[in-house]
Amino acid sequence: MVERLFETLAAGSQGHPGIMRDTYGAGENFGHEVMVEAASRSGLDVTTDAAANTYATWRGTDADAPTILMGSHLDSVPHGGNFDGAAGVIAGLATIAALRALGLRPQRDVTVMGVRAEESVWFQVSYIGSRSALGTLPDGALEATRIDTRRSLAQHMRECGGDPDALRRGERALDPQRIRAFLEVHIEQAPSLFEAGHPIAVCTGIPGNVRYPDARIVGRHDHVGTPRRFRRDAAMAGMELAHALDEIWAEHEAKGIQIAVTFGRFHTNVELHGMTTVPGEFQFSLDMRAYDEAILAGIETRMHEAIRRIEAQRRVTFELGQRASAAVGLVDPAIRAALTAGAERLAISSIPLGSPASHDSAAFAAAGVPVAMLFVRNEHGSHNPKEAMEIDDFMDAAAVMALWVAENA
Amino acid sequence: MVERLFETLAAGSQGHPGIMRDTYGAGENFGHEVMVEAASRSGLDVTTDAAANTYATWRGTDADAPTILMGSHLDSVPHGGNFDGAAGVIAGLATIAALRALGLRPQRDVTVMGVRAEESVWFQVSYIGSRSALGTLPDGALEATRIDTRRSLAQHMRECGGDPDALRRGERALDPQRIRAFLEVHIEQAPSLFEAGHPIAVCTGIPGNVRYPDARIVGRHDHVGTPRRFRRDAAMAGMELAHALDEIWAEHEAKGIQIAVTFGRFHTNVELHGMTTVPGEFQFSLDMRAYDEAILAGIETRMHEAIRRIEAQRRVTFELGQRASAAVGLVDPAIRAALTAGAERLAISSIPLGSPASHDSAAFAAAGVPVAMLFVRNEHGSHNPKEAMEIDDFMDAAAVMALWVAENA
Repeated sequence: MVERLFETLAAGSQGHPGIMRDTYGAGENFGHEVMVEAASRSGLDVTTDAAANTYATWRGTDADAPTILMGSHLDSVPHGGNFDGAAGVIAGLATIAALRALGLRPQRDVTVMGVRAEESVWFQVSYIGSRSALGTLPDGALEATRIDTRRSLAQHMRECGGDPDALRRGERALDPQRIRAFLEVHIEQAPSLFEAGHPIAVCTGIPGNVRYPDARIVGRHDHVGTPRRFRRDAAMAGMELAHALDEIWAEHEAKGIQIAVTFGRFHTNVELHGMTTVPGEFQFSLDMRAYDEAILAGIETRMHEAIRRIEAQRRVTFELGQRASAAVGLVDPAIRAALTAGAERLAISSIPLGSPASHDSAAFAAAGVPVAMLFVRNEHGSHNPKEAMEIDDFMDAAAVMALWVAENA
Repeated sequence: MVERLFETLAAGSQGHPGIMRDTYGAGENFGHEVMVEAASRSGLDVTTDAAANTYATWRGTDADAPTILMGSHLDSVPHGGNFDGAAGVIAGLATIAALRALGLRPQRDVTVMGVRAEESVWFQVSYIGSRSALGTLPDGALEATRIDTRRSLAQHMRECGGDPDALRRGERALDPQRIRAFLEVHIEQAPSLFEAGHPIAVCTGIPGNVRYPDARIVGRHDHVGTPRRFRRDAAMAGMELAHALDEIWAEHEAKGIQIAVTFGRFHTNVELHGMTTVPGEFQFSLDMRAYDEAILAGIETRMHEAIRRIEAQRRVTFELGQRASAAVGLVDPAIRAALTAGAERLAISSIPLGSPASHDSAAFAAAGVPVAMLFVRNEHGSHNPKEAMEIDDFMDAAAVMALWVAENA
């Protein structure tokens, strides 16, 4: 079942190269259709909510007992891979199938959630699906526009069967008090497990981030021969900010403090640039992340200091634009310990690992839900067409999750 | 006449913003039409050559005496200004008009040359018009494609009335032995004259350059959370090369050695980049220039050393692509001294100034023609819509050139 589901998903969402499950678009919709079909075939109750998230529920005997949620997102970055996100949904479906095959019957509801819109590249807003469900979507988010279509989140949501007006009225699909736990299986986004030789890891924490999705530097376009003292080179100003933050990163790493700094977009204006013109304009996106709010705030302060210095020296202006942030996501210590112990009982070798990436789990943690995550070995990183996952490793993660669900449902 | 010509040129080649006289395209053709019309109205002999350069000649009494050539180019960068190039052609026409108004009659031919294709941004080849006329266009240049149309130089040249086959057969319009001098008036591309408070400068030299028009760095696209040790971030590799060359520039400047380093295009792949993806690809153009061949070679050696270091540290690959170069252009000392003395006699305040930019004059110098240049004050730099030139300053340059022509024609 697992292999067939991954194959069906990939076949229907090709991105040439890679996978394209665009958020609130045809690609993501296809992912939800595949989930609904698989869940219906298994006899699970399928529902959706105002943000068009999909829920597939195995009913428990006690309707009052808080639900166990398992899941992840079904969208991908443009030209991404097949596993980032979808693996968490399929792991949930596989867990229920396995427990049912054993003849178990849960006391509480066990639900797989196919989350919408986790990949913030599309609307430049984090955790849209999970925060909509939890009633914590920030003000204004429904007006964010998709980077390619320039149409609003509200419009896209409505086209996918959602009801943005219900979200505006403050309605929420999930009450954090009524959720026993949110469990998320995800491929690792770096090759740490591949390097260390373990199939799975138990997550120790999810970083918070500060983001500037659309920053810009304004200098002056000049002739390629312009002497140094006259230049207001926006690209070299961008270079210098990147250099400063790269050194701050190296410095933290030397002290054993994990952070990450990424300039995903980093570019001269493709409409105006040319070999013989000093760039008068430069654009970038910036994502800074850390596992500790104070560390994150410190990096941002030093970023502002660097910008002030560069503006004075290079006579350019930084327009940072919109700022977005997501809180550090703390993992529930008891569930984490139970997953680690469960892996040991199943003779599956695991290590503790901080998630370098952001995940829906962080939105659930911020709402007060106990969360835990399991990472699956992946040699090639994620957000690229080469994402790799062995089904055996995936089944190890599903087995550890299933054991916890069996004992807690 | 001068003001009307500049106005006519600007009105017919708007680039929104700025000026667009595209090389071997509608914009440059318009420049040549304006020149032909003005020259014909003044009764000059108008001819063209195989590269579609335009010549307007005031005939001398001695057909055997080597010609005095004045001129510059009529193309512009995309979204450039109205004066870069065109000022040299109009200064030539104004010089002839002034000398004729004085009732003078030259012994030798005095010719204004409207040069094609000086702005190398279009075909990424330097000095196409002047080197075609002199028979020194490099092999393969006719096959270069224009960055926007992707059609070949030969095709564009033919559409503008040129004859690329004649160039392929080695025919040339100009014999360096038959040219007494090539004189070029040009706006200064930096605000040195504005800063120093002089209307004109006499050029002391034209830098040589080494260029990589289409370089690329290949790394690996990864998830935004990927830890530092796993990244192959192509953008940060580009940042580091720019940082290294910027430091080399600062170092030379501290020693009083003038060079320039420009990354005109400096960008992540706009088709694939995104806020949550570590860039696996980065593209740039690089122009390095100096007044001394040994200095230039030294910078290029250090560039290669920096690339080797960055490739090893960041686990990326640089693909530098095509390399182009232009020799240092030496100015004729006797003409330079005469222009300086002439300015003094006319009570026009001038300073000696190295040209930070490349110019057709360098192609003539490389072919053995005595060359000289005069720069006109410009507050706002060039290759941008804000290029500025006072007609009084321009007339000062034309007057100094006219005096030399009067005494040497």
